[in-house]
Formats: sequence, C-alpha cells, structure tokens
Amino acid sequence: MFSQKFIRHALLLSSRGKSGIRCRFRSTQAIAEKVTDGFVEDLRSIVGKANVSTAEAVRDQHGHDESYHETTLPDAVVFAQSVEHVSKVAKLCNDNVVPLIPFGSGTGLEGGINALKGGVCLDISQMKNVIEVNAEDFDCTVESGVTRGELNSYIRDTGLNFPVDPGADASVCGMCATSASGTNAVRYGTMRENVLNMEVVLADGTVLWTAGKNKRSRKTSAGYNLTNLFVGSEGTLGIITKATIRLYGIPEATLSAVVHFPSIQEAVDTTVQVMQCGVPIARIEFLDEAAIDAFNKYSKFDMKVAPSLFLEFHGSPSSVEEQKEVVEEIAKMNNGSNFKWATNADERNRLWKARHEIVYACTALVPGSKPYSTDVCVPISNLPAVIVQTKEMLKKENLVGPIVGHVGDGNFHIFFPVDHDHPEALTKIKAMSEKMSLLAMEMHGTCTGEHGIGMGKRELLEKEVGIEGLRAMQIVKNAFDPNQILNPGKIFPV
Amino acid sequence: MFSQKFIRHALLLSSRGKSGIRCRFRSTQAIAEKVTDGFVEDLRSIVGKANVSTAEAVRDQHGHDESYHETTLPDAVVFAQSVEHVSKVAKLCNDNVVPLIPFGSGTGLEGGINALKGGVCLDISQMKNVIEVNAEDFDCTVESGVTRGELNSYIRDTGLNFPVDPGADASVCGMCATSASGTNAVRYGTMRENVLNMEVVLADGTVLWTAGKNKRSRKTSAGYNLTNLFVGSEGTLGIITKATIRLYGIPEATLSAVVHFPSIQEAVDTTVQVMQCGVPIARIEFLDEAAIDAFNKYSKFDMKVAPSLFLEFHGSPSSVEEQKEVVEEIAKMNNGSNFKWATNADERNRLWKARHEIVYACTALVPGSKPYSTDVCVPISNLPAVIVQTKEMLKKENLVGPIVGHVGDGNFHIFFPVDHDHPEALTKIKAMSEKMSLLAMEMHGTCTGEHGIGMGKRELLEKEVGIEGLRAMQIVKNAFDPNQILNPGKIFPV
Repeated sequence: MFSQKFIRHALLLSSRGKSGIRCRFRSTQAIAEKVTDGFVEDLRSIVGKANVSTAEAVRDQHGHDESYHETTLPDAVVFAQSVEHVSKVAKLCNDNVVPLIPFGSGTGLEGGINALKGGVCLDISQMKNVIEVNAEDFDCTVESGVTRGELNSYIRDTGLNFPVDPGADASVCGMCATSASGTNAVRYGTMRENVLNMEVVLADGTVLWTAGKNKRSRKTSAGYNLTNLFVGSEGTLGIITKATIRLYGIPEATLSAVVHFPSIQEAVDTTVQVMQCGVPIARIEFLDEAAIDAFNKYSKFDMKVAPSLFLEFHGSPSSVEEQKEVVEEIAKMNNGSNFKWATNADERNRLWKARHEIVYACTALVPGSKPYSTDVCVPISNLPAVIVQTKEMLKKENLVGPIVGHVGDGNFHIFFPVDHDHPEALTKIKAMSEKMSLLAMEMHGTCTGEHGIGMGKRELLEKEVGIEGLRAMQIVKNAFDPNQILNPGKIFPV
Repeated sequence: MFSQKFIRHALLLSSRGKSGIRCRFRSTQAIAEKVTDGFVEDLRSIVGKANVSTAEAVRDQHGHDESYHETTLPDAVVFAQSVEHVSKVAKLCNDNVVPLIPFGSGTGLEGGINALKGGVCLDISQMKNVIEVNAEDFDCTVESGVTRGELNSYIRDTGLNFPVDPGADASVCGMCATSASGTNAVRYGTMRENVLNMEVVLADGTVLWTAGKNKRSRKTSAGYNLTNLFVGSEGTLGIITKATIRLYGIPEATLSAVVHFPSIQEAVDTTVQVMQCGVPIARIEFLDEAAIDAFNKYSKFDMKVAPSLFLEFHGSPSSVEEQKEVVEEIAKMNNGSNFKWATNADERNRLWKARHEIVYACTALVPGSKPYSTDVCVPISNLPAVIVQTKEMLKKENLVGPIVGHVGDGNFHIFFPVDHDHPEALTKIKAMSEKMSLLAMEMHGTCTGEHGIGMGKRELLEKEVGIEGLRAMQIVKNAFDPNQILNPGKIFPV
C-alpha cells in the first residue's frame, strides 16, 4: 500500500521524538537573540507597556496549544488591542527579521502556535468587538478575539447562529486560520465555505481585506480568491484580524438520536448510505466501542458499549420527520438497534456537551495521561475499510485509541491517552498516527481533514500534495513572507 | 454614493472604447514577433504538425469569446492532445517569453481569451476523457475538453448530475478557470464550493495537482488551498487540464413555477424573504418586464409582461410541496399572481431552455445588434435598492437593457442589445455598466458575481479590493508567472 522506504523514513522521523523538538529549540536561540531589551522597548512603544510581557509564565502559556507538542517559548508576548497594533508589530518584526506568531484562543491541535524559533507571540484575543451583524443578509463581522461561543451568545436574539463547531470554543479568526470544521460541517460546510471576507495583516504590516473592504456578497469572481488562500494558512501568510462569516437560521425543529451497531462496518455502512441517499443530516458522528466506554464513564451515561452513531437532524418539523424515517430505515437494515431519541433541548445539549468532552473522557481512561489526537479524512466509500484497518493496526500495536469521527465527511479522529513524559509511548503513537495518515492518503484522502499541518504533519505534506504541490505552496509563502518571519517552522517540512 | 472624481475617471476609461483595444493590439506586435517560423516549428514538433495552425480563420475563431470585446488574434493556435503537450508548450513559451492563452469552450463573457499581446492560443478542448466517476462518493474527474452537458450525458445512468449551470455549455475546466456559477448556485454553490482538486500546468511547464494526485476527500486542512487559488484565476496563474468535482443526486421530485408581480420591488422582496425563511430553493430567477417581453417574443411564450420570478424546487415530494407552500404564501403577500406550475419534465425543460436563451432573446429586440452582458452581485438585502436604482439609471440614459438575475445569490445581469460597430452606443453602455458596478460595490457587493474580470473590468478591480488587495494578487501572479506569459492583460489594470 505504501513503500517500505517511506515507512522507514516516517518511522525514523517519528522516532526523533522530543529530542528533535529540543534540537529545534536550541537552534532557535541565534534568532531569538534579536529580541533584545531595545526591541522589547520598541514593542512597548507600539502597544503600551502593560501589553508586552517577557514573564516566563506568560511566555509558557503562549508556547503551546492543546496538543501533545512540547512547549516552545516565544521571547516576548504582545497583547494587541487594535489592527494598528498588529500592523506596527508586524512591520517591526519584519524589519528586524524576528519571528512573529499569531495567537488566538490556543485551542489548536497540531502545535500551530509553538514558537519554534522564539520571537514574538502576538496575542490577538483581546480584540473582542462584534463589528456588525447583518441579520437580513445572514452574515456578521467579528474581531480576532471573538470566540464561536461568544458570537453565538451575542446573536442569540436574531434567530441566527454560526454552526461551524470544532468542539473547542475557538476564536472565529483562529478557525479561519486553521480551516476548522467539526460536527456540523456535513450540513453547513467548513470554514472554507463560510468565510466571505477577512481583514489580514501581512508580514510587512500591510492591512488588506481579502475581498475588499466592506464587501460581503455571497459570491464574487473579482480576481483571485485571496479569502480562501488565507483560510487554512495557519498564521504563515498573514494575521487574520477580522472575519466576515455566514450565519444560518436556527432550525425550526431539531432532533438528536443515538443508535448502536453490532460492528464498525455496519455503523459506517449506515453513514455512507445516509449520505448517498442525500439526507441533509446536520450531524452524523461515529464512536467506536472504546469511545462509548470512555463516554459512559466520564459523562455518566449508560449506553450500550458498541460502535454507535450520534445523529442530529435540522429543518422544518416535517422535513426532520422525513429524515428521521429514512435514517432509521437505513440503520435498521444495517442491524442498528436501541435507538434513543433526544427531542428536548436539555437532553440534546447534555448529549452533545458529552460528545465534545470525548477527548477528556478518552484521557481519563489512562491515569496521568494527556491527549494525543490525530485526524484523517477520506472519500466516504473508503471510510469503512480505513476505519477497520486502523482498528486492526491499533490492536496489533496494543494501543488504546478510541475512534471518533465526523463520518459524514469521511473524517475521523483517534484520541490516544498518553503519558507525555514517556518518550517511548509517544514515539509509538506518533508512528501509529503516521501510518494512519499514509493509509488515508493511499485511499484518496488527506492526512488532516481539520486539524491542519501545524508542526505535527510537516513531513507528510509532500507525500500528500507531491513535490510540485509543496513547491507551489512555498512559492506563495516566499512571495508573501520573504523574510520567513510568520510562524516559522509550520506547514513546511524542516 | 461614489466620488465624482472616480466617475470621471471611469467615464474617461470607458470613453476610450475601441481605440483603447486597438492601441493594446498594436503595442503587442513587438512581443508577437517572437512567434517566428522557427518557434512555430518547435510547437509542431511537440504536438504534431496537424495540431498547430496559423491560419487567420482559426486564429480569428480563437481571438474572441461570446462577449462584446473586439477580436484580438493570437499568432498561432495549438490543439493540445495531452497534459504532456500542455506542459511542453508552456515550457517553450516560458523559455521564449511568448504569451500563452488557454482556450476552453470560448463561452466567456469578459474577453478572457482575447490574445491582447498575441502569442500562442492553447486550445485544450480536444482532451475529452471522463477520467473516472465515483458514484458512491459523488465525485468525478474530467479532462479539460469535457463540457458540462457532455458530462451530464455521460453520467445520466448513475442518477447523479453536475448542477452548476452558467447557461452556456461551457467546459468544466473553463468553469473552474472563471469561477462560474449560474441559476443553480443558490442551492448547490458556485465552482468554488464544487471543485475538490485540479491538475494544473504552471507557466514553466510544471504539472501539479492542487490537492495532491488522486486525492478527493470532501475536506482537507493540509497546507494552502491551492484549489481555490486556481479556481477563478482566469488562465493567468496556470492551465487547468483536469478537474475533480462534486456531483449531486438527481432530485426525487422537481417542480418549476413562474409568478408575476406588480413591481420590481415586490418581486425582489419576495426573493429576499424566501432566502431569509431558509427555503432550500434550487433556482430563483428574476426577469424584469423588458426581459419577459423579449422572452415572449423570442421563445413563443405569452407570459404577463411584468417583473417575474422563475422558480425551481428540488427534493423529496413532501419537501418540494412544503417549499412550494412557503414560497407561494410569501409571493402572495407581495402581490404575486398568475402562478404557473410546470410539473412535467417537458414543460420544465422548455421553460429553462428559454430562460437560458434570454441573451439571444434580448439581442433580437434590436435588429443587427449583438449582446453586451454585465453582472454584479450584492448582499440580498441591498438587491431591491440596487435593481430599482439601476432601472432608473437605464431610463435616464434611455437605454434598452433587460435585467435578469440569479437573485437568490444577490446576482443580476443586464443584457444590452447593441450594434458593436456603433462606437458611441458601445461607449454609452460601457459607462452604464461601470456605473452599475460602482453602485454594487458601494452597496457592499462586487463588480462581478460570475463573469470574472477578464479584460472588461480590469479598471474596477482596485476600486473593489483596494490597492492592498490588488497588490496581494499581483504578488501571487508574479510568483507563479514571473515572465508574465499566462493570459497577459487580464484581471490586472493596464
């Protein structure tokens, strides 16, 4: 399926483990030396004394996200209060060739904000204005610090919501930066389909709107699609300071359900058939028996420990009823049983809150562990084979790794609970994660459906897009950031 | 609403009319001289003697699209039979700094294939293979010559179709290049949402797959979104030789209808309210009374000559019924009358065929005329004001210009019938078209929702995306095409 040579290469890379990171951290110091006392004073003169910190606690807090990647500290943390701050700090860093890493909510899963070469971490989470809500056009514009949850609270009275839901209460602009998606993407799309425009600060301090200032039409053919160039660029092309995004009407009727299956194959076959029947399902989440077990223990449910689907339907009452009937029939044909319907909001909220806490539930399986999560995505017809083969690999390697997936998109995760101070365990899991990625790519899929490349999958990108694709990305990177100051060490192989 | 200075500038530009084009044509000859007999021999050695033509008739056929822009001839036309041909021709042109213009079906509407600087027109329409259809994954991959109609014939037995429908039977890859959309985009999205991957040949002959070879997952976060960088790049960044696109199930039930209104405001208000109610309508097309008049005369209908909406609903029988009820109620609240329902396929096909022929119907209004079509797109809440103001401007200028729009997206067109040999009439229409674009941009919209910038709206792009946005686009252009050989003179202001 993939060459022995490549596997050996991948294993070699993964076996470097922590020492690799330390090596990068060390090699960083030469550049970091540029963040002198004078440079810090220059930062303070831009944003005010109180908005720059070199305290270790603050740098530590900004040196890691929620992933397994070891903390790597920036030399200074700057709290921007305006786009002018962002622009001036970028210009200063660019003029002095100092690394600059934008920091949103810190909820990333591939080490996207680790300061691999030191430099300045630019925390843009304090810009919290909702600039405008155009309820009649189903769009709004928010500043970089506004989280998904804050936005949805703010617009609650309009009858609208922003459904893209990666689980964490990430900032909307951070979600743009990583091309986030999540449970609702099967119905509402990912960030790529939901961003209309963004204010972006380039490496040299230039402020631009990707679709033009104040523009928010549903479609445009005017020049290059800069919006979707910056969505998913992980802070390596520019700093996203505002985003204009689509909103959706809160559905008239919502219905959630859980159904259990005798085998993974039957659960995933159900998913594939539901999608092939064109049911406009809002959520279709797979949990294998290990995930259900973790879920029961952590969130105090008593579900049948079996491969399961969590479903949600949105629409008019009759449309929801129709979707329910079709899905129920398909599930039953695949031996689905124990349907539990959650019709009221409290039951639904409890179910989905617990689903979103699954990463903590999986971690709780192994005392003293932290999560190591990975994600791949394949065409849905290949999903049963990929999940089944992954399970076999997990069994062979004797690894605990509950599988949870946004399977309607062909996207799934493994949440490995692992002691991060146990290098051998980490190395074994890294190798497993890379095998999964290689398998997904072999099956016409991607090594990451929604977490991004960050620092965790840099060595896989060429395998996925080819040397030509990688070079094209480097052409773009070099054109926008010739001094390589923006989030260095991310996306591209070292 | 917009500055007098800008209007004067726009009018000045538009008043240059044909002489401007001639001037560009003349300035071209210096470069065109590079297409020597020896160079043509080199082309023949790549693609075979029969696949290169310097005959004036062939060059003429490849020197214009379906728009009002005056024909500008390439020096040679090459008919590529494979991606290897495309790659080698690109490399040859790049090495010799000869302009290279990709040519698909020639159905563009903004002069996208005019050879403004002479050079080689690379006709990629003869590569006609459907590479694969993955019915179970709702995707397929086609070569550059496969048109939308040919694809839909090919996949008819699968129960799937490709719904993006710009009217013309354009090539799918050409639709990628211009970011096409059309009547169905309100339900199924534009090309931006429907392309999963593309094979692209860069200026230097490099062949790349934007999402990696053989990759076709529904979503990915692996590196930069090269796919959406090339979608809409109008042949200026690379040549699209294959596309992997999404397919959709042919709906179980389809219902079309026409309804008439006392005023434009009421027709457009209906559209806005239908969208705001979240009806998943498949088509909602506006025709003003002038368009209905042209439509009746050309296609032998006897509809009430009034502002009208053409509607189509897709879904299950009960979902279609539900949509019909909601829309009927909204239309009636806005004094819509004379509902005519087309339930059988023959009636529907006749209606939509005639709708797609509206450009010819409008042209038939003025004997000896050819069409001049333009398009803008605004947030839907601004649509009533923009259409009403546009009608007032038309009246003031005493211009015949039926308005037809994909109004569910906020997108509409004017089809001006004009004698292209009458420079004053053309100048007047250009000025009107630019006023419309300025108005749309002022109302948070775009100067082109789906036709692209081409050569017709180059001078408006900076107004839309700002000098910073324009420079960012130029950064991308220069990075991918440092010798400026790919489709020179398009998108960017001269």
